[in-house]
Amino acid sequence: MTDLSALSALELHYQASKLLADYVECIDDDRLEQWPDLFTPDCLYQVISRENADRGLSTSAMYCDSRGMLQDRVVALRHANIYAKHYYRHVLSNVNVKGVERGELLVQSNYVVLQTLVEGDTHVFNAGKYLDRMVATADGLRFKSKVVVFDTYRIPNLLVTPL
Amino acid sequence: MTDLSALSALELHYQASKLLADYVECIDDDRLEQWPDLFTPDCLYQVISRENADRGLSTSAMYCDSRGMLQDRVVALRHANIYAKHYYRHVLSNVNVKGVERGELLVQSNYVVLQTLVEGDTHVFNAGKYLDRMVATADGLRFKSKVVVFDTYRIPNLLVTPL
Amino acid sequence: MTDLSALSALELHYQASKLLADYVECIDDDRLEQWPDLFTPDCLYQVISRENADRGLSTSAMYCDSRGMLQDRVVALRHANIYAKHYYRHVLSNVNVKGVERGELLVQSNYVVLQTLVEGDTHVFNAGKYLDRMVATADGLRFKSKVVVFDTYRIPNLLVTPL
Repeated sequence: MTDLSALSALELHYQASKLLADYVECIDDDRLEQWPDLFTPDCLYQVISRENADRGLSTSAMYCDSRGMLQDRVVALRHANIYAKHYYRHVLSNVNVKGVERGELLVQSNYVVLQTLVEGDTHVFNAGKYLDRMVATADGLRFKSKVVVFDTYRIPNLLVTPL
Repeated sequence: MTDLSALSALELHYQASKLLADYVECIDDDRLEQWPDLFTPDCLYQVISRENADRGLSTSAMYCDSRGMLQDRVVALRHANIYAKHYYRHVLSNVNVKGVERGELLVQSNYVVLQTLVEGDTHVFNAGKYLDRMVATADGLRFKSKVVVFDTYRIPNLLVTPL
Repeated sequence: MTDLSALSALELHYQASKLLADYVECIDDDRLEQWPDLFTPDCLYQVISRENADRGLSTSAMYCDSRGMLQDRVVALRHANIYAKHYYRHVLSNVNVKGVERGELLVQSNYVVLQTLVEGDTHVFNAGKYLDRMVATADGLRFKSKVVVFDTYRIPNLLVTPL
């Protein structure tokens, strides 16, 4: 898969959905070490509030501009950060392919992350949208950039696990 | 795209999902002015409780039977209604094509709308199902009718934004 | 449809999504009598906590190893169990086909079940993932086994309706 513009709309939608499914599974199944591999080496991963994004402000809750930085985050999360045990569960929908621009597939989708804490109850942790740019690589589609625009601006404690 | 019955099940599913994705994005990204364009001029848009729908009662929380009425709602929402600032986020799933009937594509799906209010927390605002009839137009699939059957019958305040 | 390995990845994804959509609709539309028909006669249906599943423990909240047992559950639910009236609404996403193994299609997906009780509010009832093995039959894909691994280990009252 090298020429995205040769693929049908249906096939592009499927490929984009597949990458998003792999992304979510890495996080929810706690295989975070595999998570950076879904990005290109010189990627962007940004987590920003909807309020800031709408106003064109760049202050972000997370900002990583290489796969190495993503790997560092995972190491920090495994070894340095202290946080309560929790489960994450993403529900993702509305995968909407916007087109191909300079070899990059533009995809928007909605997500909600449900969190289960030690008491065993599950609640809405965070909701928002993904604005993704995906590129074709020898291993299939990968994220060239992923911007997470979140609605939920009251975030309890540290944002440890990626959204 | 004029003859729906010539399309494969897979293609119909994709086209239906795409229209639903465009619908949700209009609302969640607050581009409501574009929302009526996803309906045919002589459409039906009905929002009804599951209890009433199950009993065959017709009392609805919203009932619009033309694109013009949908446009009026948007104007009212922008200029007349007073309500607290909020974000909406739809998560939609289970898009299930039931068949083609007299040139109309019958599609059922489940939705949940998450709302974020000024405090920054996100909660479940409304859940239910969409019963849609879509028709082929020169611009692609459009809603001939959309019936929103909601489970959540305690609706705080006014139902301002479309579901 | 008899040879799954002859189908494209896209087609497999669609077929799996369709079975899951039919499954969810049976439950949410309260057509539970049709629910066992989505399984093969010698199926497995297991509902297990993520904690137990992760530790390799087999204690389950539900365990049925034939279609007949599933039918028994529905009869019990209709006639014997006493429980408050409620609505269920599944939102399912992230349908991820893992491959074909000995004629079985391995599929993982995420789910959240929203519940509406008599007060009319909707809340997150249960979230988790489905680990499914689907096989081709004369009627289309059916569940050979369905393992529901749930995050939400505080379950209020009886788990009556299937997840």
